Amino acid sequence: MLNYNYLFEIIKDKDRIKLGKEIDEKYLSDAIKRNKGEAEVLVFPINNEEVSLIMKFSYENNIIVTPRGAGTGLVGATIPTNGGIVLDLSLMNKILELDKENLTITVEPGILLKDLQEYVEKIELFYPPDPGEKGASIGGNISTNAGGMRAVKYGVTRNYVMALELVLANGSIMNVGEKVIKDSSGLDLKDLIIGSEGTLAIITKATLKLIPKPKKSVSILIPFNSLDKAIDSVIKIINKNSKPTAIEFIEKDVIENAENYLQLKFPDDKGEAYLLLTFDGDEDSEVISNYNKAKEVCLNNGAIDFIILNKIEDIDRTWKIRGALVTAVEAVSEQEPIDIVVPINKTAEFINYTKEVQAKYGIKITSFGHAGDGNVHLCVIKGSMGEEEWNKKSVLLLGNLYEKSKELGGLPSGEHGIGLNKRPYFLKVTDKVNVDYMKKIKSVFDDKNILNSNKAY
Amino acid sequence: MLNYNYLFEIIKDKDRIKLGKEIDEKYLSDAIKRNKGEAEVLVFPINNEEVSLIMKFSYENNIIVTPRGAGTGLVGATIPTNGGIVLDLSLMNKILELDKENLTITVEPGILLKDLQEYVEKIELFYPPDPGEKGASIGGNISTNAGGMRAVKYGVTRNYVMALELVLANGSIMNVGEKVIKDSSGLDLKDLIIGSEGTLAIITKATLKLIPKPKKSVSILIPFNSLDKAIDSVIKIINKNSKPTAIEFIEKDVIENAENYLQLKFPDDKGEAYLLLTFDGDEDSEVISNYNKAKEVCLNNGAIDFIILNKIEDIDRTWKIRGALVTAVEAVSEQEPIDIVVPINKTAEFINYTKEVQAKYGIKITSFGHAGDGNVHLCVIKGSMGEEEWNKKSVLLLGNLYEKSKELGGLPSGEHGIGLNKRPYFLKVTDKVNVDYMKKIKSVFDDKNILNSNKAY
Ligand SMILES: Cc1cc2nc3c(=O)[nH]c(=O)nc-3n(C[C@H](O)[C@H](O)[C@H](O)COP(=O)(O)OP(=O)(O)OC[C@H]3O[C@@H](n4cnc5c(N)ncnc54)[C@H](O)[C@@H]3O)c2cc1C
Ligand SMILES: Cc1cc2nc3c(=O)[nH]c(=O)nc-3n(C[C@H](O)[C@H](O)[C@H](O)COP(=O)(O)OP(=O)(O)OC[C@H]3O[C@@H](n4cnc5c(N)ncnc54)[C@H](O)[C@@H]3O)c2cc1C
Repeated sequence: MLNYNYLFEIIKDKDRIKLGKEIDEKYLSDAIKRNKGEAEVLVFPINNEEVSLIMKFSYENNIIVTPRGAGTGLVGATIPTNGGIVLDLSLMNKILELDKENLTITVEPGILLKDLQEYVEKIELFYPPDPGEKGASIGGNISTNAGGMRAVKYGVTRNYVMALELVLANGSIMNVGEKVIKDSSGLDLKDLIIGSEGTLAIITKATLKLIPKPKKSVSILIPFNSLDKAIDSVIKIINKNSKPTAIEFIEKDVIENAENYLQLKFPDDKGEAYLLLTFDGDEDSEVISNYNKAKEVCLNNGAIDFIILNKIEDIDRTWKIRGALVTAVEAVSEQEPIDIVVPINKTAEFINYTKEVQAKYGIKITSFGHAGDGNVHLCVIKGSMGEEEWNKKSVLLLGNLYEKSKELGGLPSGEHGIGLNKRPYFLKVTDKVNVDYMKKIKSVFDDKNILNSNKAY
Repeated sequence: MLNYNYLFEIIKDKDRIKLGKEIDEKYLSDAIKRNKGEAEVLVFPINNEEVSLIMKFSYENNIIVTPRGAGTGLVGATIPTNGGIVLDLSLMNKILELDKENLTITVEPGILLKDLQEYVEKIELFYPPDPGEKGASIGGNISTNAGGMRAVKYGVTRNYVMALELVLANGSIMNVGEKVIKDSSGLDLKDLIIGSEGTLAIITKATLKLIPKPKKSVSILIPFNSLDKAIDSVIKIINKNSKPTAIEFIEKDVIENAENYLQLKFPDDKGEAYLLLTFDGDEDSEVISNYNKAKEVCLNNGAIDFIILNKIEDIDRTWKIRGALVTAVEAVSEQEPIDIVVPINKTAEFINYTKEVQAKYGIKITSFGHAGDGNVHLCVIKGSMGEEEWNKKSVLLLGNLYEKSKELGGLPSGEHGIGLNKRPYFLKVTDKVNVDYMKKIKSVFDDKNILNSNKAY
């Protein structure tokens, strides 16, 4: 084992370094907690200088570094697979600047999404990206190009990152982007970093774009007799130009599972499947005119009801249940979460295909998620299946799903990233030339292959 | 000179190859036409196979290739500086697919922006990017990440590119992106190509995102006593959340110049400077409520009037004059067009600085442009200054402007790109490590440095 004493010179505060057995298990895994890696050191830097020195040290000594935000990732990207250092950025969580004129906020990467959202919303500003897990860090959100509910109207994390400060593999510092809206000044290094899952550089600062907070927001629950009808309505809602903020879909049994888990009742039980919509805006008239377009579409397309959630308590219950779907599945069985993305008009076909493979392999698959952007979330559930059979069949089943998504013009991940878990499938369905170029670009940034190596691509 | 006979085997149609002296001068330059390069061959491929074979041939023989769209660029990026082949994509101008469900359109790169806009608007769809020059090609727009008027509300070209087909330097074909809204599947190669000015790959196909066409659009002219007051109002209009589509600013003397050039009268003459706003939406109420917010701001901030242009003829005149500003300057004097971008709240400071250097060097600078996104367009005008003096002074003056923009947190180009003309300034104000990484990434895509070499970065 390498001598890590030098780290104690860089990081004065001993509490911020853990060695070997001192490392809490959670730092060796991700949100799923199923797989664990091994690391020699866990370190919590508090500024970019420390990050830079740690990287210099790692670079010189060929030590693998696994960057880590809040550890809420679902794809094993924070599992240290080759020992080395886990670089946890959670203490770098300060807000550095709020620029009310340009509507930007500059933060350290460890700040949690919920803290950022709360801070800006208090002053009537708004950070639109809204992935389900509010305990994720902004650095993690940027590194996975996190999506979430509001992507239908507002786009994903990528659309809100204006500038980044990076520490490169060799410890040097690079700044990409500026507080400007247009940029045609050389190659777009910033977008290359966004979604790169810690494989190219460490993000140590981010400037994000804000918008004025919409004054009104309405949640609407729409029960349908069948999932088919529900999904079929989605594209019609969008093409009617009703400007929904979010369009989520959930099947009845997934809801029941979450109801049991949370001991909370969903506000309606008429549907076999539901669409959950939000609309926002500054004027009541605008919001109402928009959701009325959706109402017409849905009722003409077999919706049983169109329930505008008026009571705060109903809205809370509904979104709590929506938020707990994965966790509720996790609580009863091992599962494999997937976030394949397909063209919106292929969503129904893809979900129907999941029913086929469910039957074929005798493995239950629940589906829900961001219907408004074709980002289907599946839980492939082990249930009572024996370990060996599960290991064999689930791999085949997942292979089928990824092949199908490719056939439909989709991609392996809409927002969770590839990490460790999806890598074999990603490598199978992605053109070789694309993977080759990704690897070559990684070599440009990380010639010693020390940054989250053997992840993603 | 190399033997180009092989090209006649690839390109059956002899008319589509021009050799040496046969090449019309315009293919050796850009929209400014001041500088000219030299090329041995000009070729007009009609499909990706031909492009691929041309690139294979060029790769094997180390021939420099200069890709070219409609040649409306302003930065010399289409000037062949090292002989070789000019690859003109204007004949690849077909619409390949309109997907009304997913709201996408797939086109060849040579299609002109105006043809695309006309095609989609006829069927009530909308391609939001709207750079001033509608005779540009989509391939050129993508390669420069073109911006334009509507960027304030709708963003730039980058935000509308879903997928690209590329021919790489060695002739192989790569597809990046898919018809999906979210993507977290490996490194973002697509955004690396957007804005790369033909230095990484040839774009041979593009899938673009469309939106439903807004049903209402209103243009408003706001005269001010001073440019300061006008610019000062811009950030207030935005922060009032009035959701303007475009915010342009123009000074009086620039208007007069264009009036003379076009022999057209601007609808108003009360102002020393003007803001020109557009608002769009689906409902009158929405548009009116939005522009009333802007009205309040402007009248409280010294606006002389708030003129809603009702007559089609007035709207036409106004936008024709706005559209002809550069050309009108060009018609009377040699000039250097600049499109520096700064944080929106630094626009006034930057424009004031241009007045300082104008006085310092005795060189006239007119300013106008996309005030709503900090993308200041300047014409640095030679006028009657002698060649030698101009050459010396204009370089110093431009250097000052780029330094100032850096100091203000800006970037050298918001939408025109770097090309040949801005390259020395770009290299001066951009951190060395960024330029190094850009060059290394270029080597990944273009190890023989044959694709538009020595441009941009
Ligand atoms: C219940 C639940 C719901 C979820 N819902 C959504 C959803 O709706 N949408 C969505 O997109 N995701 C969702 N996720 C996934 C997860 O929250 C996101 O992937 C999130 O972006 C991860 O952030 P994190 O801070 O936890 O990052 P981590 O999990 O710690 O790390 C994620 C990746 O980013 C890298 N990384 C982290 N910080 C940095 C840094 N500063 N510099 C460089 N690399 C870094 C890591 O190396 C790793 O590759 C959900 C997760 C859970 C558990
Ligand atoms: C009057 C006027 C007004 C303008 N207003 C604006 C404005 O408001 N906003 C704005 O952004 N621009 C504006 N421009 C600049 C210009 O129109 C844009 O840069 C445009 O995007 C260039 O498109 P093009 O087809 O003419 O490309 P070209 O000038 O032919 O080429 C531009 C660059 O793209 C590369 N390229 C072209 N096609 C391909 C391809 N298929 N594959 C790979 N590389 C390719 C070329 O190598 C070159 O580097 C204006 C220009 C004029 C003359």
